[in-house]
Amino acid sequence: MSFAEISSIGEFGLIERIRRAAPSAASLRVGIGDDCAAQAPVPAELLLTTTDMLIEEVHFRRAWTDLHRLGRKSVSVNISDIAAMGGAPKTLFLALGLPSAMTVAEVDEFAAGFLEAAAEYGAVLAGGDTCRSPGPLLICVTAQGAVPEMQLVSRAGAREGEAVYVSGTLGDSALALRMLQKGQTPCAAIAGRHHDPRARTELGRALAEGGIASAMIDVSDGLLADLGHILKASGVGALLDEESLPLSSSFREAFVADPEVLQLALSGGEDYELLFCTPPHKEGEIAALSAALSLPLTRIGEIRPPSEGFSLRHRDGSSRPVGSKGFSHFNAG
Amino acid sequence: MSFAEISSIGEFGLIERIRRAAPSAASLRVGIGDDCAAQAPVPAELLLTTTDMLIEEVHFRRAWTDLHRLGRKSVSVNISDIAAMGGAPKTLFLALGLPSAMTVAEVDEFAAGFLEAAAEYGAVLAGGDTCRSPGPLLICVTAQGAVPEMQLVSRAGAREGEAVYVSGTLGDSALALRMLQKGQTPCAAIAGRHHDPRARTELGRALAEGGIASAMIDVSDGLLADLGHILKASGVGALLDEESLPLSSSFREAFVADPEVLQLALSGGEDYELLFCTPPHKEGEIAALSAALSLPLTRIGEIRPPSEGFSLRHRDGSSRPVGSKGFSHFNAG
Repeated sequence: MSFAEISSIGEFGLIERIRRAAPSAASLRVGIGDDCAAQAPVPAELLLTTTDMLIEEVHFRRAWTDLHRLGRKSVSVNISDIAAMGGAPKTLFLALGLPSAMTVAEVDEFAAGFLEAAAEYGAVLAGGDTCRSPGPLLICVTAQGAVPEMQLVSRAGAREGEAVYVSGTLGDSALALRMLQKGQTPCAAIAGRHHDPRARTELGRALAEGGIASAMIDVSDGLLADLGHILKASGVGALLDEESLPLSSSFREAFVADPEVLQLALSGGEDYELLFCTPPHKEGEIAALSAALSLPLTRIGEIRPPSEGFSLRHRDGSSRPVGSKGFSHFNAG
Repeated sequence: MSFAEISSIGEFGLIERIRRAAPSAASLRVGIGDDCAAQAPVPAELLLTTTDMLIEEVHFRRAWTDLHRLGRKSVSVNISDIAAMGGAPKTLFLALGLPSAMTVAEVDEFAAGFLEAAAEYGAVLAGGDTCRSPGPLLICVTAQGAVPEMQLVSRAGAREGEAVYVSGTLGDSALALRMLQKGQTPCAAIAGRHHDPRARTELGRALAEGGIASAMIDVSDGLLADLGHILKASGVGALLDEESLPLSSSFREAFVADPEVLQLALSGGEDYELLFCTPPHKEGEIAALSAALSLPLTRIGEIRPPSEGFSLRHRDGSSRPVGSKGFSHFNAG
């Protein structure tokens, strides 16, 4: 570990350092260190591309996370978008804006987390950009993946009468964030969901390959907002059942102490679970998949005619229409 | 034009606004507004990908440029990397971090410049990310292009005895920047080279298609640094001829007044011209290409054995070894 300032090795030294740490891949004709990465296309597979910016003090605080987990998270949140289309991740591009006080050891720590997570997902770092930032640490990751042409799952395929499912549990990440904002210390399980979320790549591929999901999205803006995106793209309505939301034991404890916490499972965001729709006759396959992946897959509602809009059935049996309740930059939600 | 604050339309309103302004493309299976863009691969063509971050106060100042030209520049500097591999640009991804004071009209102005330049290069906006920035305006663009498999031009193909060529003129962009930093007003021609550079896509394709360039790079860090990148990747040396550097008439005027200005042509950066190597028997084709494109292509040196290193022949006939003289983030060069 070197604690020298980045200026001692310079921009090209830094790129060379990351290049040496990154494994190469046979699919890359040209990798890190040229004007572009060059890759041979995969025949009969669609190229998937997504990009996300993570900005210090907006998306993360360095007081709350270490750089290794931040590196991991910046990979996972991007690859989650690949999973949500049914794809397998292939390549990553990393643009970094580094504050002048950041050390080489800190960049190494971030890069180690980034490369560790990339390897877990079977993706390789293929290029990027490094520059100095006048203030916040800036991270912009672009992920590329592939999906067989007939297996692509968009947001637009949901049909009336289908069931709505979500993987894992909801609200844990938002609960951790709320506790941190209040100066409390979330337990490791909850904190891990916020600082080191896992993209559901195996599930996404299985749902696509088996023709199980008709429409899919990852829960990044919050359940209500993200289901809203599917409904809008598909031109349908939905009835969501509050009672059936999958909640972790830590989340249930917090919910018992303060019922308002339930809003975090509905609108908190950053769950990175997969939310998908499926025809009723596929529900047996979903149970088998859940067992095979040791991952809860929970039916939380159904797709309704567009005329019925989007509503939420409460625990007391009453229903109310859903507004825009997810996380959005620039407004209160 | 709306002068409403961005918060009044929200993140999804902003994305929808940009989506409506962006043309669609037949090659895009899924465009803006899903988790990923999805594209069918081009058979027998390599996928080229490059990403660049532009940070306010590091890469640009809003006092010196308008947002329309900034939108254009953020496209061109990325596509320049595609051109430098011999590729044709296809798709763009735009991640924006927007300061809270920025208005919808300002985002529209940026997006109009971005989409105008994209259309000129034959590229489409296929996705992105928008979020708020706690301070500077942040722009991260990822560009994808394609090049026929046998036509890829990397930095690594330069061979002893080849000629070194550069397109256009050198130093204009850096001269404009230096004048702005001194509070002077550069003439329109010089200012345009800095604020609205043009990626040399037609030239890059022609050099690749004709098998003319053996190695190529775009001049973004400065002539000496970028030729240094080619030499390192190719394992060769070079002798560069200072007398032959192509200089614009505006640049020559400044050079007559202050001979120190020549450093800007050698090390200034942001020229976005193509620097390439070519075997001697191709020089006739280069002259024809220059005439066809109405673009100066100037022989500025030759590739030498690795043992001779990298040196610069001055106007008085003397030669000196070249150090690291281009632009690098984090150090003085």
